[in-house]
Amino acid sequence: MSGDETTITREAATRLGEEVMRLAGYGPDHARAITASTVLAQGDECHSHGLYRLLSCAELAERGKVDPKATPAVDDRAPAIVRVDARRGISLTAFEAGLPHLVEKARTAGLAALAINNCYHFSALWPEIEAIADKGLVALAMTVSHAWVAPAGGARPAFGTNPIAFGWPRPGKDPFVFDFATSAIARGDLELHRRANSPLPAGVAVDAAGEPTTDPMAAIDGAMLTFGGHKGSALSAMIELLAGPLIGDMTSAQSLAHDEGAGVVPMHGELILAFDPASFLGSAVAENAARAEGLFAGITDTGARLPSARRYAARRRNANRPMPVRRAVLEDIEALSARLRRAR
Amino acid sequence: MSGDETTITREAATRLGEEVMRLAGYGPDHARAITASTVLAQGDECHSHGLYRLLSCAELAERGKVDPKATPAVDDRAPAIVRVDARRGISLTAFEAGLPHLVEKARTAGLAALAINNCYHFSALWPEIEAIADKGLVALAMTVSHAWVAPAGGARPAFGTNPIAFGWPRPGKDPFVFDFATSAIARGDLELHRRANSPLPAGVAVDAAGEPTTDPMAAIDGAMLTFGGHKGSALSAMIELLAGPLIGDMTSAQSLAHDEGAGVVPMHGELILAFDPASFLGSAVAENAARAEGLFAGITDTGARLPSARRYAARRRNANRPMPVRRAVLEDIEALSARLRRAR
Repeated sequence: MSGDETTITREAATRLGEEVMRLAGYGPDHARAITASTVLAQGDECHSHGLYRLLSCAELAERGKVDPKATPAVDDRAPAIVRVDARRGISLTAFEAGLPHLVEKARTAGLAALAINNCYHFSALWPEIEAIADKGLVALAMTVSHAWVAPAGGARPAFGTNPIAFGWPRPGKDPFVFDFATSAIARGDLELHRRANSPLPAGVAVDAAGEPTTDPMAAIDGAMLTFGGHKGSALSAMIELLAGPLIGDMTSAQSLAHDEGAGVVPMHGELILAFDPASFLGSAVAENAARAEGLFAGITDTGARLPSARRYAARRRNANRPMPVRRAVLEDIEALSARLRRAR
Repeated sequence: MSGDETTITREAATRLGEEVMRLAGYGPDHARAITASTVLAQGDECHSHGLYRLLSCAELAERGKVDPKATPAVDDRAPAIVRVDARRGISLTAFEAGLPHLVEKARTAGLAALAINNCYHFSALWPEIEAIADKGLVALAMTVSHAWVAPAGGARPAFGTNPIAFGWPRPGKDPFVFDFATSAIARGDLELHRRANSPLPAGVAVDAAGEPTTDPMAAIDGAMLTFGGHKGSALSAMIELLAGPLIGDMTSAQSLAHDEGAGVVPMHGELILAFDPASFLGSAVAENAARAEGLFAGITDTGARLPSARRYAARRRNANRPMPVRRAVLEDIEALSARLRRAR
């Protein structure tokens, strides 16, 4: 552990997180859900979605855009669709409200969709994917974000960083889970390059004229690119459509316009699908679970790692010890807590 | 039109195709469906899925693996799931048998899955996507293929070329449709490079030691790569799982093993999802269709093209005139027809 790092127990992080979220104005459900999400990510050493995010959630509440006490409204729309209106709250409480309905519908209909609307979304998708896989269901989730990403062949942004995540349950093992942005670089990484004034990797951005650039300032004036050229671009368009107009919510361009430059955490929708293997397979579930294990063994036999392997290794490492955290992050959270306490 | 090209009317191509497929042993439903698929692709100037494919379908029947007269068996498994056992026939007749159930289930449940099992699959996915979009539904389809593609970081194949396709209906306009292989290069293109002994583009293949190569022979001994690095690789794994074990069908590795070196057209499963915007949106369908149109205008305003734009332009060009076709393809089909006629 370097001098920049310290450790914190889950219990202390949870106490600190819930306290500072309550001080920032969040109701108890929001404070608990936000804290649980950031503590989970911190334990997996996903620093960008870890305790650090408590700071942006507090800022979001201070700017007055989020409703920090919103109660999500569940709408049972169809045998295989549940929609949850987050009512300008954080996505996490809306997910909690929708999950039991999603699971029940997937088991009854065979597959089902949970559409979350009007939510502020700051978290990774993998915690939701894991929660669904934990019920023995296959999961797929996606959200739009803010329009910072140009389509392949385009010179200006039309898409968000549009993450997509997928999970396959593996009884007795960590689920197979991936969760990635369809942008070629994370917005946060572009921001780090800008602050450090260090060149971007090639192929991740264009300038305002649509020409490739490695200059982070030129990229911010221009656009980020999607991963994977025209194929990644097509996938990003699909995410815009499925997590936007299909569920009655904003596209990334609309979300960016709605934000009016606040730039903290975007508000938009999220689409989550759950598939019930038992409904598809009947008595052939075990045989096909073994087939999937054959695929995973085939992947690792080639020398490749399964996605999330690093995250799961961190989780195991930190299971029975305090989690590592950057000292500056803890200091910032404690300073925030002190400031909010004074302001009461 | 070059000297290598000629033209054929839809009617003549349909007559020729159905005749040669019947001579090759296919029953009337198979002969009609195979021919319709290849004529549609030819009219869109998708040569790789056009009339040329009649030759491989005939070869498939001659090798005795496909059941050219199979009648698909429909299994109404759950409110949102229909499975169709193609019984070793071509996927197309199974899709036709399943489509009305998929549409009815999507409209009733809100979304639904059509799983096709035990099918030989040679066609593009976009014709199926268009057929679903034509019913006003959003569509997503995927299949595995043969294990020729290495996962990111791996030195040996574990995935197929695993195509994925998506469609969004646009009333009064061509639907928004994409259809791409998750491999970095098409298997057919690798084959063309091998025959021409011309170097591959960088970044599409590794040799048997897992090192990057542009030598097509080394790539055939080694593996193709996915598009988009570890993200494309993760997506390809998802397709293996959803279009394989989830629906009780083979992975690409199993399909390749089953093929026993015949190497014509792979047998495996296909997963197709349909989403009903009206079930998600109720009275807000038109408003959200307009939102999607705003996204499409946003994409083209950046200077980018929508996927399938070239194909739709070809379709319009050829709507009222004979379709272009390579002279050699027509000659090969006519020679095949003559040979099969003599062999009767």
